[in-house]
Amino acid sequence: MYVLDLIGIAAYAVAGALVAIDRDHDVVGIVVLAVMTALGGGIIRDLVLGDTPPPAFTTWQYLVVALAAAAVTSVAHPWLGLLGRPLLVFDAAGLGFFGVAGTQKALDHGLAPVAAALLGVTTAVGGGVLRDVLARETPALFRVGSELYALPALVGCLAYATAAALDLDSPALAAGTAAAICVVRLLAVLRHWRGPRALRRRSPVGPSPVDGPTPP
Amino acid sequence: MYVLDLIGIAAYAVAGALVAIDRDHDVVGIVVLAVMTALGGGIIRDLVLGDTPPPAFTTWQYLVVALAAAAVTSVAHPWLGLLGRPLLVFDAAGLGFFGVAGTQKALDHGLAPVAAALLGVTTAVGGGVLRDVLARETPALFRVGSELYALPALVGCLAYATAAALDLDSPALAAGTAAAICVVRLLAVLRHWRGPRALRRRSPVGPSPVDGPTPP
Amino acid sequence: MYVLDLIGIAAYAVAGALVAIDRDHDVVGIVVLAVMTALGGGIIRDLVLGDTPPPAFTTWQYLVVALAAAAVTSVAHPWLGLLGRPLLVFDAAGLGFFGVAGTQKALDHGLAPVAAALLGVTTAVGGGVLRDVLARETPALFRVGSELYALPALVGCLAYATAAALDLDSPALAAGTAAAICVVRLLAVLRHWRGPRALRRRSPVGPSPVDGPTPP
Repeated sequence: MYVLDLIGIAAYAVAGALVAIDRDHDVVGIVVLAVMTALGGGIIRDLVLGDTPPPAFTTWQYLVVALAAAAVTSVAHPWLGLLGRPLLVFDAAGLGFFGVAGTQKALDHGLAPVAAALLGVTTAVGGGVLRDVLARETPALFRVGSELYALPALVGCLAYATAAALDLDSPALAAGTAAAICVVRLLAVLRHWRGPRALRRRSPVGPSPVDGPTPP
Repeated sequence: MYVLDLIGIAAYAVAGALVAIDRDHDVVGIVVLAVMTALGGGIIRDLVLGDTPPPAFTTWQYLVVALAAAAVTSVAHPWLGLLGRPLLVFDAAGLGFFGVAGTQKALDHGLAPVAAALLGVTTAVGGGVLRDVLARETPALFRVGSELYALPALVGCLAYATAAALDLDSPALAAGTAAAICVVRLLAVLRHWRGPRALRRRSPVGPSPVDGPTPP
Repeated sequence: MYVLDLIGIAAYAVAGALVAIDRDHDVVGIVVLAVMTALGGGIIRDLVLGDTPPPAFTTWQYLVVALAAAAVTSVAHPWLGLLGRPLLVFDAAGLGFFGVAGTQKALDHGLAPVAAALLGVTTAVGGGVLRDVLARETPALFRVGSELYALPALVGCLAYATAAALDLDSPALAAGTAAAICVVRLLAVLRHWRGPRALRRRSPVGPSPVDGPTPP
């Protein structure tokens, strides 16, 4: 699982660095966005749990992997465009693994299952949200029309936390849940699955322009 | 006060969910904005005070009320438009109550009166600021021309913290201060009271365009 | 060093208040932006280190200096335009001092040199980033074409942390490092030094529109 952790950090760091490079930031912007994306979610989780200083600051491997991924991306980004699919797979794997690992850590700190699952999802998506806020993008969570991202992670983390509450958790279940989250996320992208939205406003004279881009 | 607390959380969660629904977000966006609005200010306060994990994660009632309010809003929002005034009252009540309760908690953790009042106001407005940053709105605190919002909360919290420093605090004073903040906020909206601004730049030839949105 | 600390807070608070005044915010916006700029970086550092409540809340001098600087700025801002250079010097001094002081505090809490230097830089630039996020500006760290800002601080903090790991640190070295960061920052502004960016995308037919605003 430690190797998977580092793979997830590397994938997230590459994604953060690519955002910075696309915007022509200098080395500081690249490093900040890469590190925030890769480690930000875990830092938020650790601050909430009171595990300070967060391991992102005390376990040097995490930081080194994030910085190395950012450095490689800065040089190799012209060729990474050819690797869109692998990146997406890494990102989905990170979503699953960070979600389950964050849930497990929250359970270890005594949180109840629902709270632990929410904190696990925060671990998985928090770094990307921080990156988007800093880069002045709309966070992916709030992009209208985007495919399922946090929802499969939430369902998977809730299932894992429930199993753990029933003493059914095991490393195999953790890995299986992470893999399931990853697969559902990839299927959602391939098949354009989207999440349910609120009931539309009633309109006596048919779809009104108030409703925005005319829902079906 | 516990009931008032839950009412405040519900009102804030409704407000957050309405922002998400207006923007046609899916269920994840609705839940995230509702929960951040309702619980974000308290989580910031608890992180600053070192009370980790924050009660928002350990007291399940808080989260359940926020999620239930978001779910009800998702279904009932077409009718909530008719209830603009009740919502405003709930929001103002939340401002007063969260402010005073946050100040009290900060005092209990040994902060000095001014710092405790500032942290109390942070509790009351922090969730809304987080929501606006995530939703890429200008935070209400910084909207030019908006009615008094944080200022009555700050004055009320300072008064309460000063009374507490003189051992004059009581549940009645807390409730009265919260009510006073609520009433002043509502009066500010009704009468369009606005806060003082910085002295304008001197201009030898009368009001200059520097003062407005068209700098030279 | 305590006096330098307060000078740094005052300079940062003036900078934050000026942003709010330029946008015609009321007193709440001015106070919030000034206090966040002056104390936000230190609060982030203290939350990461687990030093709660942060000294910004328990040492009243910090808050009073920030508020006093904001109040003076609100009255005196028409004349501050004449003082652009002194402000820049104060800001650069704050960058150096907060960076080194933050690095020292992180080392005192047992962080390794690289992590301590990163946290020191976070102390120095975090308040400004918070201000820019709240005010919906692009954080200075990410502005394309801006002069070196975080990079000299990072290099200086890394050097200081390395010296400290070798037991070579002293108050004189701390002051010298802070001064060096300050001087390099000022030179960067005067001479328009900019940081390195990622390698450009290869383009077989000259600069492509994918590259954005056609780099040189």
